[in-house]
Amino acid sequence: MVRVRAPATTANLGPGFDTLGMALNLYLQVEAELMGSGIEIVFSGVRDRLVMESPQENLIYKAMNLVFKKALYQPTGLYIEIDNDIPIGKGLGSSAAAIVAGMFTANRLIGDPFSSEELLRWAVAMEGHADNVVPCRTGGLTVAMVYKGEVFYQRVQAGQELQVVAAVPEFILTTEQSRSVLPSSIALPEVISNLQRACFLLASLYNGDFSHIDKAMQDMVFQPLRQQFIPGFQQVLKSALAAGALGTALSGAGPSVMAFTRAGQETVVGQAMAEAFGEAGVKVQVLYLKPDMQGVHYY
Amino acid sequence: MVRVRAPATTANLGPGFDTLGMALNLYLQVEAELMGSGIEIVFSGVRDRLVMESPQENLIYKAMNLVFKKALYQPTGLYIEIDNDIPIGKGLGSSAAAIVAGMFTANRLIGDPFSSEELLRWAVAMEGHADNVVPCRTGGLTVAMVYKGEVFYQRVQAGQELQVVAAVPEFILTTEQSRSVLPSSIALPEVISNLQRACFLLASLYNGDFSHIDKAMQDMVFQPLRQQFIPGFQQVLKSALAAGALGTALSGAGPSVMAFTRAGQETVVGQAMAEAFGEAGVKVQVLYLKPDMQGVHYY
Repeated sequence: MVRVRAPATTANLGPGFDTLGMALNLYLQVEAELMGSGIEIVFSGVRDRLVMESPQENLIYKAMNLVFKKALYQPTGLYIEIDNDIPIGKGLGSSAAAIVAGMFTANRLIGDPFSSEELLRWAVAMEGHADNVVPCRTGGLTVAMVYKGEVFYQRVQAGQELQVVAAVPEFILTTEQSRSVLPSSIALPEVISNLQRACFLLASLYNGDFSHIDKAMQDMVFQPLRQQFIPGFQQVLKSALAAGALGTALSGAGPSVMAFTRAGQETVVGQAMAEAFGEAGVKVQVLYLKPDMQGVHYY
Repeated sequence: MVRVRAPATTANLGPGFDTLGMALNLYLQVEAELMGSGIEIVFSGVRDRLVMESPQENLIYKAMNLVFKKALYQPTGLYIEIDNDIPIGKGLGSSAAAIVAGMFTANRLIGDPFSSEELLRWAVAMEGHADNVVPCRTGGLTVAMVYKGEVFYQRVQAGQELQVVAAVPEFILTTEQSRSVLPSSIALPEVISNLQRACFLLASLYNGDFSHIDKAMQDMVFQPLRQQFIPGFQQVLKSALAAGALGTALSGAGPSVMAFTRAGQETVVGQAMAEAFGEAGVKVQVLYLKPDMQGVHYY
């Protein structure tokens, strides 16, 4: 039996669009073994849209199959048990976790023919973007760079002491929908602002100096366009900051909003975010998380 | 007598336009004292366009006067001795150094009424951009962020082990000329590429992992537009990398080209850059430098 645990992730962190990401201590767990015949997928924990679908539609199963195909291997049968705590379609990297977990599971089942760097490359290709896949793989805070189709990344030892509060609305926002409002070009002053803010945020986290990350996390390019999908968005950011959040941003493509806080501040911030969402008529689940420093692993 | 030493700086480092900067161990030194009457400016070391002008046109003197005015102080007379090793109009932060040195000199002459943060703010306002002024002030590798007109920065403890080779063409390129070709907006894929590269570069320097900074330093937005002013530019970059440079970029607004190398590689890289410039008919001076970790200081 192979057991794989893959973390949720929050991408962008405001200005770091398609670049910055952080792994969170909220997990998708997959147990799997090869069988003589048949495909059996068993669910425990949260049941949801994606994982309730047929094996052929299941993202974990698809990712496993991609690895099997790369190895020219055809399993006669497969047992997969899925225990997923990561809300799906909420901007917390559920598909990255499913793809990464599936690929690492399949690779181990057939004797690890591929390196984790190969798996990472395929996972990015399957997911379409690197900013959730990379931290899901490595844990911690990461910078992803795609250069001539190839993925490069740096993992930065920073931010471990932060608490991460995620306010997760009931409704689902697909990445496709969220990306549909992106502009084809961006005015130079906004390009420079975002570049400065993303680098400043990274350096602040590295330096453990959180005094101005509220400013650095204010993305002026992507979030303003996406907030149309998220009732109460600006008020949620404001309320989180007023309640003591160090910084706050849309989590990935949304609709979840995340906030960094110091230890002890998380509950007040979470309640403020839930209230602000509530006033806009949006019911949320508030998750109190920490950075995951390990990334995908066998257990 | 007040003595101030301010370092040269290289801004942008490729993709980090108006954001990243690094101080270099090449200096402008100013000695000054208050006198009963008259304004005397004495030059030693490199004599050049800017410092040879009348007191009223001299940038150091102008910066000093700004501080005097803020203090509502009017000197009866002033003696200023300038020893400048920083090439002027070459993209090595000579005006930032002049402004910072002038302000720190004037402030000390009148008993330090202003904090260094106040001086920094005025220096950025006078220079127009923060990416040279900030590292000139702090030394080392820096990230500048302008937020609602205010300057914030982080100094990152990284890159000390790097050698910096600067190939300095004979001709002068003004920042105004170099900025005149900047576009009003930038296509989204290029925005994302540059954002990823700038953050990746910063994280690589932080991690001391120089294996892919050649890729990260390839700016696709600003350098391609500016290379029209610099004969042989692309070939200089290629030759530097082929000779073992870790990464290479236009230094600030140019025309100097800078390269990072490991210790021991600098001469080969410098020669390759000089040759490539030579083939394009450009005579250069090659400077072999290191990061300055101290920034402006009294001595």
